[in-house]
Amino acid sequence: MDDKAREHIKVSYKVKIFDIGAGLPIVVLNESEARQRDLFLNDRVEIIRKDKVLSAIVDTSSTLVKEGEVGVFIEIADQLKLNPGDKVYIMPLRKPASIEYIKKKLDGGELKSSEIDTIIKDLMANKLSEAELAVFVAGVYTRGFNAEETVSLTYSIMNSGDTLDLGVHPIVDKHCIGGVAGNRTTMIVVPILAAAGAYMPKTSSRAITSAAGTADTMETLCDVNFSIEEIRNIVLKTHGCVVWGGGAHLAPADDKLIRIRYPFRLDPRGMLLASIMAKKKAAGSEYAVIDIPVGRGAKMEDPAKAKQLAKDFIDIGTRVGIKTRVFVTEGSDPIGYGVGPALECKDVIEVLQGGGPQDLLNKGCMLAGSLLESAGLVEKGNGFDSAIGIVKSGKAFNKLREIVEAQGGSPNLSIDNLPIGQYKGELYAERSGRVEYVCNKKISRIARAAGSPKVKGAGIILKVEHGDKIKKGDVILEIYSDSESKLSYALQVAEEIKPIELQRIVLNTYDKNAF
Amino acid sequence: MDDKAREHIKVSYKVKIFDIGAGLPIVVLNESEARQRDLFLNDRVEIIRKDKVLSAIVDTSSTLVKEGEVGVFIEIADQLKLNPGDKVYIMPLRKPASIEYIKKKLDGGELKSSEIDTIIKDLMANKLSEAELAVFVAGVYTRGFNAEETVSLTYSIMNSGDTLDLGVHPIVDKHCIGGVAGNRTTMIVVPILAAAGAYMPKTSSRAITSAAGTADTMETLCDVNFSIEEIRNIVLKTHGCVVWGGGAHLAPADDKLIRIRYPFRLDPRGMLLASIMAKKKAAGSEYAVIDIPVGRGAKMEDPAKAKQLAKDFIDIGTRVGIKTRVFVTEGSDPIGYGVGPALECKDVIEVLQGGGPQDLLNKGCMLAGSLLESAGLVEKGNGFDSAIGIVKSGKAFNKLREIVEAQGGSPNLSIDNLPIGQYKGELYAERSGRVEYVCNKKISRIARAAGSPKVKGAGIILKVEHGDKIKKGDVILEIYSDSESKLSYALQVAEEIKPIELQRIVLNTYDKNAF
Repeated sequence: MDDKAREHIKVSYKVKIFDIGAGLPIVVLNESEARQRDLFLNDRVEIIRKDKVLSAIVDTSSTLVKEGEVGVFIEIADQLKLNPGDKVYIMPLRKPASIEYIKKKLDGGELKSSEIDTIIKDLMANKLSEAELAVFVAGVYTRGFNAEETVSLTYSIMNSGDTLDLGVHPIVDKHCIGGVAGNRTTMIVVPILAAAGAYMPKTSSRAITSAAGTADTMETLCDVNFSIEEIRNIVLKTHGCVVWGGGAHLAPADDKLIRIRYPFRLDPRGMLLASIMAKKKAAGSEYAVIDIPVGRGAKMEDPAKAKQLAKDFIDIGTRVGIKTRVFVTEGSDPIGYGVGPALECKDVIEVLQGGGPQDLLNKGCMLAGSLLESAGLVEKGNGFDSAIGIVKSGKAFNKLREIVEAQGGSPNLSIDNLPIGQYKGELYAERSGRVEYVCNKKISRIARAAGSPKVKGAGIILKVEHGDKIKKGDVILEIYSDSESKLSYALQVAEEIKPIELQRIVLNTYDKNAF
Repeated sequence: MDDKAREHIKVSYKVKIFDIGAGLPIVVLNESEARQRDLFLNDRVEIIRKDKVLSAIVDTSSTLVKEGEVGVFIEIADQLKLNPGDKVYIMPLRKPASIEYIKKKLDGGELKSSEIDTIIKDLMANKLSEAELAVFVAGVYTRGFNAEETVSLTYSIMNSGDTLDLGVHPIVDKHCIGGVAGNRTTMIVVPILAAAGAYMPKTSSRAITSAAGTADTMETLCDVNFSIEEIRNIVLKTHGCVVWGGGAHLAPADDKLIRIRYPFRLDPRGMLLASIMAKKKAAGSEYAVIDIPVGRGAKMEDPAKAKQLAKDFIDIGTRVGIKTRVFVTEGSDPIGYGVGPALECKDVIEVLQGGGPQDLLNKGCMLAGSLLESAGLVEKGNGFDSAIGIVKSGKAFNKLREIVEAQGGSPNLSIDNLPIGQYKGELYAERSGRVEYVCNKKISRIARAAGSPKVKGAGIILKVEHGDKIKKGDVILEIYSDSESKLSYALQVAEEIKPIELQRIVLNTYDKNAF
């Protein structure tokens, strides 16, 4: 086709700028004009200004732009240095190949490694719309990913960002599926392993629906937002770190996929596994321990499914070269006393100083002990006792102080320095009995009502746990906040949703009208 | 929860207005502030200004709005009469129940009638994001809809808009799956049925990827954009109409679903059936005939699948009270000579005047004859002959003139009045041989290059058909356009893509290096 013919494909438009970001590179064309050119919603085009070319996604409107006009958002305007009224050319592009591969998965096909990689590359290049990505997630959810596809996705996600190349051994990691309030074992495990000579470049998440993520909790003590180069320096110096995963550019495709999975809470098995393992691979991990809490109200309620997930973790771990052990743990009740960043920090510091909640100490040392054994730092069977020893000797506490200092915090770790909320309220038992259940979700909701995780000192101290005998009027929990009104609101929420259940003798009553 | 507590949920924001439409009612919140309030992308909120309340979908941004600000697009600003800096309240809402039902379908569940209806109602109320709707379509595509679900969807789509209540009998309808160039049987069938005393309130589509839809073709003669009340008056007066379906408010949910299905060309069987039958039910149809063209390059290539689709149409038709007959027709080649609005009109007028392409006459009369029989207007077996008789007597032509006049056009139908493009070019046979295949898609592409369907007079007249013996240098098609440059472009496209194949003796050649 000669240049004259191409002029019919490469059409010129007058620029109209919308002074707002669109997140994706979108151009808005007049609807009937676009239809005439065979351009439809979500089609791809190139927008050309002099010698610069960008690819963009078509949106259409019958009111926002007139024929001959193209609407662009600030991202494109900035990149092409456009002013209103400028002339640009728009040329149709083929749909990205990803669309075909996503359709293939929807039809039940098995995706090749190169196909999965193309999807993740197009995701990172913003070439796929949210609807198209949602169809990808739905396809993986309904059709599944086999082990090969999961491994491919792991590498593609890993390669979507930077990798940490420490050049040292052994490098260890841990991950918890989440859902248990107060479960701050990472801040116990990292200093134990670092003190024992392993390297543990731990990236953690912030709270999404809980009262605190590990990153929020660590942030009570020091900065958690570091570049990959800074993380490298901290870990080479102290053997460990506890930083926010979203700050480093490790496996960023994962954050984008999670955003898409959110509305339906879709957690396709293959994506969950790849997401976790990709972050570990990107950090250079050789040994990993995974914590899967199971129980009433936990993310996973069925022990058989937890066992299958454990098997999948070990299988994918083996395939990508990470020696993986999995613990299925009791997840029905919170761990420790404190819930909320500063109050969870208090538990961690007390445990590392030789006191604190024993369930947190034991769980942390069990996970740490497993890594000590896997990495060959202690004999098989001695892991737990060695971990306890490292805590009791004060070495773990000193190591946490070192890491906190390397992350820009004060090494004078003391519970007296923690910014715990100055307003305190108490929730009382409405009757006597034995504690049957402390609901993680309700505890998190109350702590959030008090201001967690944004208000570091807001949260809860649990005064009772599963199995305790309590009397009417006993304090069952304390709520802390930085404002009287938030405290009063949190207390009202607590009274309304009742986070603690006592044992009952009569489970249900029926009469003839009940059926 | 008392009013003081509710104040923590109902938070006030300062309005920032984005001077652009978003299509959906979206509010933009500061990302970290939204996270603190448990509000995430695609969550639902109410936005409250004095006594007015709107529901909206959350978008988040870390740069566009500061903490304490809410960004709104012009639709919401207009509806709530907002000015920049105004104070509004934002309250979280539960996700619409549709999300749960869409997830149920994704998990392989069978949706109840009320659940499907809720999804369609939320779709119409703009309560679902594009990504959520895409997941719905993907769910129906992978898990399927059984007959009960399809019937439910039919009624829900029907009830999403107006219905036409004519109060007369018999009401007949026809539908073609599409994909065949020049296949303008509707403009033959409607006047025959109307002349025979049936009522045929026909709504048609515009071209999406073809050179002309029936609505585009009819528009050469008269207006096609009418309200439901206007359609009622036209049909009660003349017994028929040929109008654009998108103009009447019949089954509008369907248009929204099609928009979502477009990027992946997803046509879940249940949605296709429900979409077509809903439009027929909304128009009050009692009898319908469906045309499924099958063949090389047609939308449906496999006769066995066409048979299954025919069975499904009859089944769903029976369940919703429309007596349905289905014709699986030869769909490998174009019908008639003309391709493009005015040139297809020329074929129709010539057929109704007793001449024109015989394949168009015969196919139109076969479909019309079937409806005449179904509706009890003629004896079984006499349908086709009766239809031919109505054409040959001139009654069908007079009826089309009546309908065109009722739709605001001139009743002086003559091929001399058609706005056929004044620029004409010819494509010549490159060698001698017998015509094996005329490709519908390539023919459409050339006609579109010449300007169809927007330029009514642009398009193609085919000079050869399947089976013809031709000599090198013979004219195989004529191209018409309204501009010399479009004509030259269309000719270049035609020479490049070669729309016509001749029979070959040697199908492939191989040597030892070919394997």
